[in-house]
Amino acid sequence: VGRRVLVTGGLGFIGSTLALRLDEIGAEAVIIDAMVARHGGNLANIEGLSQRARVIVADMRERDAVRAAVSGVSVIFNLAGQVSHLDSMQDPQSDLAHNCGAQIELLEACREVSPEATVVFASTRQIYGRPLRLPVDEDHPLTPVDYNGIHKMAAEAYHGLYHRAFGLRTVSLRLTNTYGPRLRIADARQTFLGLWLRRALEDAPIEVWGGDQLRDLTFVDDVVDAFLLAAVTPGAAGQSYNLGGEQIALMDLAIMLSRLAGRGAVERREFPPERKRIDIGDYVADDRRFRELTGWTPQVGLGEGLQRSLDYFRSRLSRYA
Amino acid sequence: VGRRVLVTGGLGFIGSTLALRLDEIGAEAVIIDAMVARHGGNLANIEGLSQRARVIVADMRERDAVRAAVSGVSVIFNLAGQVSHLDSMQDPQSDLAHNCGAQIELLEACREVSPEATVVFASTRQIYGRPLRLPVDEDHPLTPVDYNGIHKMAAEAYHGLYHRAFGLRTVSLRLTNTYGPRLRIADARQTFLGLWLRRALEDAPIEVWGGDQLRDLTFVDDVVDAFLLAAVTPGAAGQSYNLGGEQIALMDLAIMLSRLAGRGAVERREFPPERKRIDIGDYVADDRRFRELTGWTPQVGLGEGLQRSLDYFRSRLSRYA
Repeated sequence: VGRRVLVTGGLGFIGSTLALRLDEIGAEAVIIDAMVARHGGNLANIEGLSQRARVIVADMRERDAVRAAVSGVSVIFNLAGQVSHLDSMQDPQSDLAHNCGAQIELLEACREVSPEATVVFASTRQIYGRPLRLPVDEDHPLTPVDYNGIHKMAAEAYHGLYHRAFGLRTVSLRLTNTYGPRLRIADARQTFLGLWLRRALEDAPIEVWGGDQLRDLTFVDDVVDAFLLAAVTPGAAGQSYNLGGEQIALMDLAIMLSRLAGRGAVERREFPPERKRIDIGDYVADDRRFRELTGWTPQVGLGEGLQRSLDYFRSRLSRYA
Repeated sequence: VGRRVLVTGGLGFIGSTLALRLDEIGAEAVIIDAMVARHGGNLANIEGLSQRARVIVADMRERDAVRAAVSGVSVIFNLAGQVSHLDSMQDPQSDLAHNCGAQIELLEACREVSPEATVVFASTRQIYGRPLRLPVDEDHPLTPVDYNGIHKMAAEAYHGLYHRAFGLRTVSLRLTNTYGPRLRIADARQTFLGLWLRRALEDAPIEVWGGDQLRDLTFVDDVVDAFLLAAVTPGAAGQSYNLGGEQIALMDLAIMLSRLAGRGAVERREFPPERKRIDIGDYVADDRRFRELTGWTPQVGLGEGLQRSLDYFRSRLSRYA
């Protein structure tokens, strides 16, 4: 509503959806994004963004670019980062640079240039590691099972630190599997579901590793609602909140997707070893804290969400696959 | 006992004490240290080390140097790191590089070159942040109050990760305030007690910020015992353990030190603001888990430990102050 709002990682899956929504409701959306394809950055994501919006292609470790981007903004939706668990194990230094080094630059810039801004950080269920109990609430111990989870845990801790030490209004949302239009579907880097969507659309078999694992999934529009609520709800600052979604076993999800797509077989596979060692088993979030504080309720069920995802990608497959 | 053992940060306070002990009991001690004075690296610390030992001056981010150092060792005592809380807030990127980036290189080298080695990591009570209850056991939530605490938390998590994902035998010891000969006394970077020791020896007043805070202190020889036990105790791998010590309020500690030194006044001061915001209040460790597993019991009381520290530094003040 006339306010200037920064979206880091705004060319990525959730970031671009958020930027488009902000643009739609009249905010001046500023995007900063390093445009790394493997992280999900894709110009196709911001098709339809108005002239009012601004896009800065820069790595957040570029100090001057970040300071300029942060200047004069009232809210920062902080979604930039490396997202692949497997990549983080193969190149931990790169994961460290993107998920920790870049976050330090952003928060230092906020402290110096925009100490009044509210920062909503995209954290992840990955920081819990293998759940000790279900559903997982925010007090569950943090034992991440890969470098990506450890670095996201550290980045979330940075946000808490800036709230306590410098009074910055920071809120962290621990996302579970998020899906929908603009998801990276070229491979499984953002979630297995990206690759499944692509294979369903290409009439290729969907490979399910294991299949009994429980997951909860949130449609991207519901996640965007949560970010907006987190930014405007008094009393949210300094805290971390789970976002949950609809619960389903992976094999059931694959079958549902294959039926909606009208084609594509489902094949059960054994876990590859490099995946097995960072798998977390079942995960279901307890997100009552955030629901009670903000009134957030996911609106889009799995059937509808998957259908909307298929519809979106069907006409744009060449720009995503 | 004839085995080759690596000590990272082996020119620093605890690392050098450990290296000297290893040398004494017949092990082949290899030291790797970036020799950063602010971190405690000081050649004066290894006076008396035998010809059998080897010193490599290198930053652990130098991949080849680390691989060479790690090759053929049976145990790695991993004490390298940036230690100052205040410095970490002023230069978080440097803290990240030394406490996370360097640790990644070390662990990757272990995985590739010495997967059979045991790694004992020097973690810290700082990862708990402000205690919610006393004494603090290992299940206490981790809410570090500064960058240094966050990065040490991440580095400890790396060690857990390499155990779970790659079977590396890693153990983390969460140290409380450690003191004794070879402590950095030029300033308060390693602990307030370093500066106090120096001021007592220089007949300058000891400044106490606040004074009612409870702390527990461990004499360095007892910490060295704990590292040796952690390396050889079956069943320790994959875990993190508190080390505790003797409990005392800071003002009482200052008075005790001043009396032992035979001079030096004690002055109570207000907290400077940049310190206040990262202060943790009272801290006392519950270290029963480690004691029960290994039989470890600290042998040196505060009176004796402070006296031995004063005696050590009195004749070497010019090399440390």
